[in-house]
Amino acid sequence: MKGIRRLAQHLDISIGTVSRALNGKPDVNEKTRQRVLEAAAELGYVPNQAGRSLRKGTTGVVGFMMQTGAQITGEGDVFFMSVFDGVQTVFARHQLDLVALLCSSEEDPDDYLQRIVARGFADALIISATKRVDPRIEYLANRKIPFVALGRSETDAGQPWLDLDFAGMATMGVDRLVAKGHRRIGVFVPHDELNLGFVFLESYRKALVAHGIPFDPALVFRAYPNERGGHQIAQSIASMSKDQRPTGFVLTNEVMSVGLYRGLYDSGLEPGRDFAIIGRDSPHAHYLTPKLTCFRISLRDLGIALAEALLATMPAYGDQYRLGVVRRVVPMQLVEGDSDAPVR
Amino acid sequence: MKGIRRLAQHLDISIGTVSRALNGKPDVNEKTRQRVLEAAAELGYVPNQAGRSLRKGTTGVVGFMMQTGAQITGEGDVFFMSVFDGVQTVFARHQLDLVALLCSSEEDPDDYLQRIVARGFADALIISATKRVDPRIEYLANRKIPFVALGRSETDAGQPWLDLDFAGMATMGVDRLVAKGHRRIGVFVPHDELNLGFVFLESYRKALVAHGIPFDPALVFRAYPNERGGHQIAQSIASMSKDQRPTGFVLTNEVMSVGLYRGLYDSGLEPGRDFAIIGRDSPHAHYLTPKLTCFRISLRDLGIALAEALLATMPAYGDQYRLGVVRRVVPMQLVEGDSDAPVR
Repeated sequence: MKGIRRLAQHLDISIGTVSRALNGKPDVNEKTRQRVLEAAAELGYVPNQAGRSLRKGTTGVVGFMMQTGAQITGEGDVFFMSVFDGVQTVFARHQLDLVALLCSSEEDPDDYLQRIVARGFADALIISATKRVDPRIEYLANRKIPFVALGRSETDAGQPWLDLDFAGMATMGVDRLVAKGHRRIGVFVPHDELNLGFVFLESYRKALVAHGIPFDPALVFRAYPNERGGHQIAQSIASMSKDQRPTGFVLTNEVMSVGLYRGLYDSGLEPGRDFAIIGRDSPHAHYLTPKLTCFRISLRDLGIALAEALLATMPAYGDQYRLGVVRRVVPMQLVEGDSDAPVR
Repeated sequence: MKGIRRLAQHLDISIGTVSRALNGKPDVNEKTRQRVLEAAAELGYVPNQAGRSLRKGTTGVVGFMMQTGAQITGEGDVFFMSVFDGVQTVFARHQLDLVALLCSSEEDPDDYLQRIVARGFADALIISATKRVDPRIEYLANRKIPFVALGRSETDAGQPWLDLDFAGMATMGVDRLVAKGHRRIGVFVPHDELNLGFVFLESYRKALVAHGIPFDPALVFRAYPNERGGHQIAQSIASMSKDQRPTGFVLTNEVMSVGLYRGLYDSGLEPGRDFAIIGRDSPHAHYLTPKLTCFRISLRDLGIALAEALLATMPAYGDQYRLGVVRRVVPMQLVEGDSDAPVR
């Protein structure tokens, strides 16, 4: 992508004339304009947004940072794509382009973010996979870069955020399984420092206490958040003695339920009959037998809300989205299926 | 993101001094450096890559254009994320960042690409979902922007490309089902002008001819490439009279098989017993019962090959990847399952 200076040198015309010709200004004669356009095509000239960005202070691009890698998106993604769809719906109104910033799980997310910010091609950012303590939040806030976080954090720089109701999932899940006679209820918590794991585990403890059930760390299962992880949890459950193993499970991850089902079947435990599962809705969960009792949310609506929360922090859009800091826990809907059987 | 000029004005110091202070040059006294750094933090100064890019002519970013939208990624993605993983493995060696350029299916891909190129934040591009005639290819070639296409096209501007072996899938699939006694073999073709649909259909016809089986357009099913689409195809099949309906199916899409299975079961047709399916491997296909006979490819290796093909067109990397135009059909491996029963 060659610059305008190179083009001007090649044509031996002033940069100003080349610029006016390229921008269709009327004070350039037709023959010159033709020469400029031909040379531009020949030399591979592209109007450089970098230059424009320096003048206008805006790139028209918003980045959405997500984690990728063999253990995270190695089996695909059934979450972000739908959220992106919602974000794009809002951005389309403002000629903003969404790009997905793919941070490999092999890289430190803080280093990654700093490099992306230094590259300077986005006006604003959406970050996800928030950690309990998340240096990215202060980094962006200190640099006055507009951003919104998908996920809460204990790091508070006054940032806007939206988050799924992991506390509500823990409470509703435990309440529902206890009402069906379960007292040994397993849960999944991710491997790393993700804030959602802490929020969920704390509410799970509280819900147990409310029912007079002691917390048993052996019922907290850690695995990678993919289908294989679900399968491994099923194997762990099957390997426990009958009086130690859980009789039911609350699974807040949306891709693991298929693996959990399969693992339970492989171990001779039939979901919905020998074992109760409450999971998260996903495209694949629809096709599970028995039908999964699950927490549902419109990911597209979540994306719309995220985009609007971001624009509400940017003065240029303040008249349309009421300037302010949005912080909102988005409730989940429990959809009844046949997978959460009463205890046998 | 404030610029250096603003910072210099605020401090009433020359831009040169501010620049030297920010870049850690030794000829700035410590007190001045401290003042500059404090003001930079306070004002939200970010070293602007836009400026740097103009000087160095390189952004360090490569964009991967993919189509998104309710009908395409509305139920998630089990293809691109794994390809990205492979691309990132190569790019990590060169401090290149991969960003996903999300082109909504509601937007014309040619317009989208032109806008993205004008924004100028990527050094090079990977395009996907190539159409039979694809104006993006000439657009990029004319502007001398390095790119590689995931998918062939009849538009030939000398571009490098990699593509899955859709012809091979048609031939192997038909041969295998014919050997099991099938003569009415259904296939899926996507709605739009994607080149892969043409390649596949042409080879399907040829394979039928080789076996002396007439081509029947009623056996070519069109649907959106998602699970719902697979379910709809099953319903269409079930609604056909018994002598008209296919007895087997070659499904080259990786997300539709779950829906096809479910739809067949719902219609009283048991995959692998009443109906034969050969599909594409995917994380969810692993969990289907009966086990899907499927075409497999390492998407991560495909990503690695794509990235290397791209770098092989960029002189800066030519010594490491042997400069040249890579054009390669990547073969698929047939993995035997239990879903392609002999005809009843």
